[in-house]
Amino acid sequence: MAGGSQQLKKQHPLQRRSADMKIGMIGLGRMGGNMADRLRAGGHEVVGYDLDPQSGRDVDSIQALVEALETPRIIWVMVPAGKPTQSTMDQLASLLSDDDLIVDGGNTRFADDQMHARMLEPKGIHLVDVGTSNGIWGKEKGYALMVGGTDQDVERVMPILQTLKPEGENGLVHAGGTGAGHYTKMVHNGIEYGMMQALAEGYAVMDASDLVKDPGQVMASWREGSVINSWLLDLLVKALKEDPGLKHIAGKANESGEAKWMIEDALELGVPTPVTTASLYARQDSQIADPTTMKVVSALRKEFGGHPVEQE
Amino acid sequence: MAGGSQQLKKQHPLQRRSADMKIGMIGLGRMGGNMADRLRAGGHEVVGYDLDPQSGRDVDSIQALVEALETPRIIWVMVPAGKPTQSTMDQLASLLSDDDLIVDGGNTRFADDQMHARMLEPKGIHLVDVGTSNGIWGKEKGYALMVGGTDQDVERVMPILQTLKPEGENGLVHAGGTGAGHYTKMVHNGIEYGMMQALAEGYAVMDASDLVKDPGQVMASWREGSVINSWLLDLLVKALKEDPGLKHIAGKANESGEAKWMIEDALELGVPTPVTTASLYARQDSQIADPTTMKVVSALRKEFGGHPVEQE
Amino acid sequence: MAGGSQQLKKQHPLQRRSADMKIGMIGLGRMGGNMADRLRAGGHEVVGYDLDPQSGRDVDSIQALVEALETPRIIWVMVPAGKPTQSTMDQLASLLSDDDLIVDGGNTRFADDQMHARMLEPKGIHLVDVGTSNGIWGKEKGYALMVGGTDQDVERVMPILQTLKPEGENGLVHAGGTGAGHYTKMVHNGIEYGMMQALAEGYAVMDASDLVKDPGQVMASWREGSVINSWLLDLLVKALKEDPGLKHIAGKANESGEAKWMIEDALELGVPTPVTTASLYARQDSQIADPTTMKVVSALRKEFGGHPVEQE
Amino acid sequence: MAGGSQQLKKQHPLQRRSADMKIGMIGLGRMGGNMADRLRAGGHEVVGYDLDPQSGRDVDSIQALVEALETPRIIWVMVPAGKPTQSTMDQLASLLSDDDLIVDGGNTRFADDQMHARMLEPKGIHLVDVGTSNGIWGKEKGYALMVGGTDQDVERVMPILQTLKPEGENGLVHAGGTGAGHYTKMVHNGIEYGMMQALAEGYAVMDASDLVKDPGQVMASWREGSVINSWLLDLLVKALKEDPGLKHIAGKANESGEAKWMIEDALELGVPTPVTTASLYARQDSQIADPTTMKVVSALRKEFGGHPVEQE
Repeated sequence: MAGGSQQLKKQHPLQRRSADMKIGMIGLGRMGGNMADRLRAGGHEVVGYDLDPQSGRDVDSIQALVEALETPRIIWVMVPAGKPTQSTMDQLASLLSDDDLIVDGGNTRFADDQMHARMLEPKGIHLVDVGTSNGIWGKEKGYALMVGGTDQDVERVMPILQTLKPEGENGLVHAGGTGAGHYTKMVHNGIEYGMMQALAEGYAVMDASDLVKDPGQVMASWREGSVINSWLLDLLVKALKEDPGLKHIAGKANESGEAKWMIEDALELGVPTPVTTASLYARQDSQIADPTTMKVVSALRKEFGGHPVEQE
Repeated sequence: MAGGSQQLKKQHPLQRRSADMKIGMIGLGRMGGNMADRLRAGGHEVVGYDLDPQSGRDVDSIQALVEALETPRIIWVMVPAGKPTQSTMDQLASLLSDDDLIVDGGNTRFADDQMHARMLEPKGIHLVDVGTSNGIWGKEKGYALMVGGTDQDVERVMPILQTLKPEGENGLVHAGGTGAGHYTKMVHNGIEYGMMQALAEGYAVMDASDLVKDPGQVMASWREGSVINSWLLDLLVKALKEDPGLKHIAGKANESGEAKWMIEDALELGVPTPVTTASLYARQDSQIADPTTMKVVSALRKEFGGHPVEQE
Repeated sequence: MAGGSQQLKKQHPLQRRSADMKIGMIGLGRMGGNMADRLRAGGHEVVGYDLDPQSGRDVDSIQALVEALETPRIIWVMVPAGKPTQSTMDQLASLLSDDDLIVDGGNTRFADDQMHARMLEPKGIHLVDVGTSNGIWGKEKGYALMVGGTDQDVERVMPILQTLKPEGENGLVHAGGTGAGHYTKMVHNGIEYGMMQALAEGYAVMDASDLVKDPGQVMASWREGSVINSWLLDLLVKALKEDPGLKHIAGKANESGEAKWMIEDALELGVPTPVTTASLYARQDSQIADPTTMKVVSALRKEFGGHPVEQE
Repeated sequence: MAGGSQQLKKQHPLQRRSADMKIGMIGLGRMGGNMADRLRAGGHEVVGYDLDPQSGRDVDSIQALVEALETPRIIWVMVPAGKPTQSTMDQLASLLSDDDLIVDGGNTRFADDQMHARMLEPKGIHLVDVGTSNGIWGKEKGYALMVGGTDQDVERVMPILQTLKPEGENGLVHAGGTGAGHYTKMVHNGIEYGMMQALAEGYAVMDASDLVKDPGQVMASWREGSVINSWLLDLLVKALKEDPGLKHIAGKANESGEAKWMIEDALELGVPTPVTTASLYARQDSQIADPTTMKVVSALRKEFGGHPVEQE
């Protein structure tokens, strides 16, 4: 593997952006695996670990990963938010030493970053939190990176961040102290919810109106010269070409947690976020088969007006 | 029938409230039929007509009804809003004479009242619009009446309104000129939507929480000493006693049009009505099996994130 | 004072509802003071403490209050939520003994109740949380009480609850375990937000429309025979009689925290609460003089459309 | 002028896209004037008229403009929606002849297009409605055009549309029959409202949070590799560079009517549009100094809770 990535290194323009580093990567799923590939292509050495023996991991335990790195270590954690990340942090807290540094590149809630930092600090272990965007396109085009941590810690991992980010002057920001990376990623996703719902409402209205021949064609026309020109518009046009009328997609959308967290923090800050909230509620509604609220409204209508109700 | 109502008249306290009148009633369904009963019980003479021969109608055509009344006539129209009301207005316009008066007691949109008045005016036919509340309880307890029209016209039908309204000082208002009766009824119903949804959300949250043993019992406790004490709360407690957990009612609620009209007028007036709007959208959502908006959101999530979508 | 309340006791119908108890009351502000009066009028002995020497307190410290009660003690805490309640709980934790019982009658967040219970439990101190409604009307008419705690603990304070509650069969509920009292009070207030906003939107639309002569008169008419008949409607009619057009009241409304907490819990439960949320946002908006969101929208309109912006 | 545009014509790549036409242009304001320039640069002959003598108009009346064109004429109307457009349509209806064609390029409501078409049809005058986007950038980069009308009529004006549209395969759509151009432009703007509000909420939350050092810098970073990459994001980053913190822009945003119309049609179609609606309400709120709804809520809080109100 080292040989292969040396070869890539010679041809790859990314190498000139950064000093080569050696890091550990925990989590080699779609995101972590692609990131490891991009880092190796950029000239870094990556020791990878994953729970799954089929993942192409280099070592078969976190302890082995820790032992494979020289101190002071840098370990990028790319596992699902919540319990998997918590458990990884707990293990690393007991295995790492003074001056080692953990990068949490997952979707951890910003308040949890701050809790992790408080847990790691007495042991001299540093924490940098990185929110990433660009999903499946990142391996090739780079990941938008939002970073939280001290100036010193962020500087230390900069060569890695430089390799992961897209080319060009944008795509990387040191947003603030611990938690700021995931906080700004959370806000990014909240905006994403609102933009998607805005496009969805526009499409749905055109689709319901007799006046519009082909809503997908209209949306395609907006890709040039219009104010709402955007990557999401491009993607929607692409999806509508692949599946006109979206006949093969169910009218249900999941929520990933981040809009919810943004709304909760906005509630505490006293900043109304009606569009983000409406976008989240629309997704929640789509997941509820038989909403209790509507049972109540229907029961009331029956009581006062004798309106017929649908029986179950 | 006249004999029977004479007899009732002698015993009924309502008769003392008003001078006896003779009117026509078009539409003898649940609302119109009950109103005719209450009017007769109050000492008025009612000539009833309905399309349905089984309705207990006194005459078998609108023309016969018009002929059965002495001029200047008063005819109460109690048929569904929209086309049925429109068609009745058109027929009456051709059958009635100068100084006759039509009361539209249905759920006509206020803008249509104004259109009807413009159509009837050249013929000297007067129009009073009356919004009514209290549904199935009105026959016994009286109907809340909101009235639109000129002072003179409203004065002319006052004996009828006095008999239909509930006892007590409230329950009847001359809200303004033509259309104001249905306008204020529309607003009444908009408020009703919001109040029902507020109760529904409170119930749904308690129902979803592990912390609350019996949401219906909690709601029952609120019937005394609490700020949200209301008839709707009483009705919800009643419904929850009849069907704990509302297990036999589907999570779908219809909309009657009036909240929609209120929002449309509020949009033109520049008055934001977020709660009324959210209440309407919740009902609309409950009627849509496979929302197009969520198809779009789901398609977008698949495009940029490779998120799995539910296939159809 | 004891003599006076003995006298009252002889005449007061409340005494027959309950066995006399002796309790401590911390916090003699508008709520706590009125509750102490109602309890004494009902035959109970109340030892009152407040930070304010002018409050009519019986003792001048929490320690003195604790010493004035025989074990096992019952102490009702009626101080503002947050830090004041937290500090009172901390002091009581160090002063009380095994089997003493604290009632938190304030507006504490339910999650904090659970934290308090965990802190008090090792010392054998019991906690009952009580949410109360009916504000300034409670002294005379009784308080709606929502209670959380174990069956045993709630049974123990039942004589007090019986005296505080309104007469009649409703107005008191044991809603569930620790926190359930404040949880259901929180939901009650969330519903209250929605109902108030529903009435407010209806009034505002009528007020803005040329068609409606006097919105206050219309609302008064709804007090009989209408579906939205409610105490809040009564209060609004009263307010509109005192100040027609509400000319002397600013268009700003505070939020008390409880709708916010309800929305946050609903977000975690996955129950959409669009009406409660819209009601809260409307109040937050009314407190923000120069909203950042609208600066952004206005800046964007200027950028893409050359629309004029208002300069600051 | 003709000479100048001949010169331009020789060098301009646009000329090759289309057969040269001669048209009238009514309205030479920012939009109409720029369009006339772009059309002339593209090789077309434009006879311009505007109410304002300083506008650089070619003729000083609509009648003169009509006389300056050979039949069958094509006249592009680019005046404000509502009364100005209505009045222009009325004048043209009396001046034009069989087979003449009017293009309404303004922001007319789609329902008005249909009314205009019914008025013009008996005289044999054709109507094409064109919604345009790209505001002040259009002269240079082209206008996104959404077109409504019959196939034949749209074909007839295609050379003009080809010159006005941006280069590339997108930016022009024949959306449907009469009104479909303005309908889809209306939907475009509704989406625009939602996207702008989504960005605004994200910015406002970051701006209010202590955690984020520089929200403008974070937004700039999103211009590469992020899902919300869009022209609106670019514009916001530009605005934040020009005026960090948007300190010189007031927190007020106007509404242009189109989101309102979209919501009204969506209400009739039964398609919930919560995000578009919330975006509109946020703008309306920002224009209301002393909201009646909040007067009502504040009055109610005073009545039931003795909460202090802000006096006016």
